[in-house]
Amino acid sequence: MAEISSLLAAVSLLSACQQGYFAFRVGRVRSKYKIAPPAVTGPLEFERIFRAQQNCLEFYTIFIVTLWTAGWYFHQDFPMVDLAACLGLLYIYTRHKYFWGYAEAAEKRLTGFRLSLGVLTVLTVLAVLGIGSRFLDKYLDFHVAKKLKKPF
Amino acid sequence: MAEISSLLAAVSLLSACQQGYFAFRVGRVRSKYKIAPPAVTGPLEFERIFRAQQNCLEFYTIFIVTLWTAGWYFHQDFPMVDLAACLGLLYIYTRHKYFWGYAEAAEKRLTGFRLSLGVLTVLTVLAVLGIGSRFLDKYLDFHVAKKLKKPF
Amino acid sequence: MAEISSLLAAVSLLSACQQGYFAFRVGRVRSKYKIAPPAVTGPLEFERIFRAQQNCLEFYTIFIVTLWTAGWYFHQDFPMVDLAACLGLLYIYTRHKYFWGYAEAAEKRLTGFRLSLGVLTVLTVLAVLGIGSRFLDKYLDFHVAKKLKKPF
Repeated sequence: MAEISSLLAAVSLLSACQQGYFAFRVGRVRSKYKIAPPAVTGPLEFERIFRAQQNCLEFYTIFIVTLWTAGWYFHQDFPMVDLAACLGLLYIYTRHKYFWGYAEAAEKRLTGFRLSLGVLTVLTVLAVLGIGSRFLDKYLDFHVAKKLKKPF
Repeated sequence: MAEISSLLAAVSLLSACQQGYFAFRVGRVRSKYKIAPPAVTGPLEFERIFRAQQNCLEFYTIFIVTLWTAGWYFHQDFPMVDLAACLGLLYIYTRHKYFWGYAEAAEKRLTGFRLSLGVLTVLTVLAVLGIGSRFLDKYLDFHVAKKLKKPF
Repeated sequence: MAEISSLLAAVSLLSACQQGYFAFRVGRVRSKYKIAPPAVTGPLEFERIFRAQQNCLEFYTIFIVTLWTAGWYFHQDFPMVDLAACLGLLYIYTRHKYFWGYAEAAEKRLTGFRLSLGVLTVLTVLAVLGIGSRFLDKYLDFHVAKKLKKPF
């Protein structure tokens, strides 16, 4: 399991750096428009970047939870090793697109946002399949992975 | 340990879906009152639902940390296997009650909020007992679980 | 690994309690100035404490992710066992300093904030070193830890 979890850890760390970078951009636009803390209102450009960062943060814990449950449980029963880690990288990219889209104009946030929701949905489905197959195994003695390899 | 952690993972995933659902409700009430992003102020009904979601998010990482420390460490020394997972489910219910209470009126948030704090407190106490017993074991060679089973 | 992870869990739990305490302080200042929810604006003293709590929350998931990746992966290859846990305690202290500094005046938040960023940076570097050395080991068969002990 060491190998899948270091991939997931690398993706988690990269996404943590991304969140830190977004926070840094908010600080930059704050000083550009001279908006003294604790104020969080101001010109539309500042408010867009601030909301973009807040929205990324709102989904960050959800992302980490689905990434690890998908990566951990789906991986144990199915042979597609790095799928969750790749989806995690894709999620980081969609959030990058979302953030810079939102920074330009409110409508331009939509593409990145919808893509990021799509990735989260796939991760959730993988996690449900992985945990579900573990429960089937444990409580009904039904081994999904074995059945898939050798159906009859 | 596989069995307790898939229960905890299932509860974490369910709570992640609940957070996603709350975010979706904020989006719905945003379009109902035509509040264009990045604005986060507007009619009281919108502001109540927005604050309800924000408050759930504020406590979400705290919940995940206490759930896993309680589930993992308390479980290893005491025989009540699924206690933390059940408390996690209860927490999800109290947050449901809180969210919809707050959506109706600001005072109606209180019951759900107090219940959710109660569940978090119990999870924290379990986690402290679990980690504490591990430290006693390691540094003072005192085995709490064994003593409870066979006091003399 | 049991021992390092119970240290990390203890630090995580302590930081979760700190976040809960910050939320409690926001509630206290809310009732002091009679700011009825869902409002989040009001006298400057309230807004400072509210923003201080929000900022701590924004960095909380980032902190948990870097703490665990640093603690888990750095520890496995290098002999400095409790470094990540100590840095975690230091981070809790810097956030304490930040929160109470911000509560007094907006400028007084800066020392704690900069220190907390410093600690996060060190944790991130440790995590990158730890995960990097794992990857080197796995894909290039190069064992950093062994080379450090016995360079030639």
